[in-house]
Amino acid sequence: MSDASILFDRLCVIGIGLIGSSILRASRERGLVNTLVAADLSEKVLKRVGELGIADVVTSDLAEAVRQADCVILCVPSGAFGAVTEVIGPHLKPGAVISDTGSVKGAVVAQMSPFLPENVYFIPSHPVAGTEYSGPDAGFAELFQNRWCILTPPPDTAADAVGRLGDFWRAIGANVEVMSAAHHDLVLAITSHVPHLIAYNIVGTAADLETVTRSEVMKFSAGGFRDFTRIAASDPTMWRDVFLNNREAVLEMLGRFSEDLTALQRSIRWGDGEALFKLFARTREIRRGIIAAGQETPIPDFGRPHGKP
Amino acid sequence: MSDASILFDRLCVIGIGLIGSSILRASRERGLVNTLVAADLSEKVLKRVGELGIADVVTSDLAEAVRQADCVILCVPSGAFGAVTEVIGPHLKPGAVISDTGSVKGAVVAQMSPFLPENVYFIPSHPVAGTEYSGPDAGFAELFQNRWCILTPPPDTAADAVGRLGDFWRAIGANVEVMSAAHHDLVLAITSHVPHLIAYNIVGTAADLETVTRSEVMKFSAGGFRDFTRIAASDPTMWRDVFLNNREAVLEMLGRFSEDLTALQRSIRWGDGEALFKLFARTREIRRGIIAAGQETPIPDFGRPHGKP
Repeated sequence: MSDASILFDRLCVIGIGLIGSSILRASRERGLVNTLVAADLSEKVLKRVGELGIADVVTSDLAEAVRQADCVILCVPSGAFGAVTEVIGPHLKPGAVISDTGSVKGAVVAQMSPFLPENVYFIPSHPVAGTEYSGPDAGFAELFQNRWCILTPPPDTAADAVGRLGDFWRAIGANVEVMSAAHHDLVLAITSHVPHLIAYNIVGTAADLETVTRSEVMKFSAGGFRDFTRIAASDPTMWRDVFLNNREAVLEMLGRFSEDLTALQRSIRWGDGEALFKLFARTREIRRGIIAAGQETPIPDFGRPHGKP
Repeated sequence: MSDASILFDRLCVIGIGLIGSSILRASRERGLVNTLVAADLSEKVLKRVGELGIADVVTSDLAEAVRQADCVILCVPSGAFGAVTEVIGPHLKPGAVISDTGSVKGAVVAQMSPFLPENVYFIPSHPVAGTEYSGPDAGFAELFQNRWCILTPPPDTAADAVGRLGDFWRAIGANVEVMSAAHHDLVLAITSHVPHLIAYNIVGTAADLETVTRSEVMKFSAGGFRDFTRIAASDPTMWRDVFLNNREAVLEMLGRFSEDLTALQRSIRWGDGEALFKLFARTREIRRGIIAAGQETPIPDFGRPHGKP
């Protein structure tokens, strides 16, 4: 591996779950960092990270972990951003790039900023990637490949620092876009947060029925329902925090969703087939666009295995 | 192939789309039928079926198609059941099994029964299987493998005929369950119809936003939204008919969904993290059950390809 590929001498990832462990794996695989530091407060997670061999330094001492790091990325549940930043703040290396991977950017800025010294570059980031699994074993080096990572630097951030963090995300496979934290939170409310909410909701509705058994719901879930159960199997703590932290944008998008659903309900009640057909025909376009944008597979059924027991 | 595997001497499939062509392919591959008859009113479809070579007889003459058939399965859009049955009714072979693959059973019974002679066995069926693609090219022999097929015979139907049709579905890979048409329509409202409706709805809501561009919706769809676009890309005509034909059950389930969603919305507005966490934690169980029931893959992200451009 040539030195030219090194983007940070020392990278510290705090919180080694699906996202954190994927960053470690991808950085190592592509030789982007001289020393990889993995920090977590859970002894169980640290033990597993040691076994997986995905970092050079593995520690629960957050202050020690960040001391020499040129880049620190917090991959902790969003409820922990403030507390972790308070601990690491005084120990950050001057000139270091500080980032995170939280799903809500306005809240991250509010929670982390008070504890950060003036002489570091704080650039929140959000890789729009993941699976329904959690923990260090769930990560993999290709997770960010061809996914988008959104950076939301405060307006006065040095372009050079934004460029360095952007280069890092690109080097581990992502496409990079820069926008304001407020716009990010609005965009993600519709592309991620409300979809999760309605998935959780329909699974809950189905589980509570008296007229249809749970066994029937499970057996006949291939009719569409099972698609929703995947994202409704996502980490409950993380998603609770998302909704508490992006309240305004989620309520705005949810209000529109419910208004549109009420109109559809009315079309069904009054037998307005034309209105139904009109909507159902135009939604296909969006999927075609997503496939054309390289954000989805055109393989039928997401590429689920067929014909195997 | 031994004669012991032959379940029907002559099987006629009317309507050669995703489902119809999959039945033809699976029947041939497993040697279940001596003569396969494919009937469709579209010349374009018939030409393609001829090219694909998935039937022995290919015709647009519905009366001729059913004349000697021991089993006739209608795989037409549900709006066409009545008209097709009116044409074929007088030409059905005495003792033949007549079935369909429609998504709503109460309506199928109402539409087909008036045109069926006394001397045939009418046993509606619904294979809970499919992909987001349509047409004869979209079908494949393994589509029904390990999926459930629901039969809704009228109470007085001869058990022998129900058994023969069940054997056929089992022979092409499906598990078979028997229930009333009314209960089927309730079960499918929650496991299929409402999921499709809310998927169509959120894709429509996202497409109509002024504050978030379509390009942004597409780029950042990996946050969860893209999962919904798959079923929102399903056939618009078929789904319009489903909602018009299963109005009562869909409105009942949709009412519960909306009520639950309003409660969630209130939890978000008032910052009730405990209520959110409680729901998000219990919905995981349902997915685990679906995976355990063999109705879903445990592979992360449905097995979507990762790391490929």
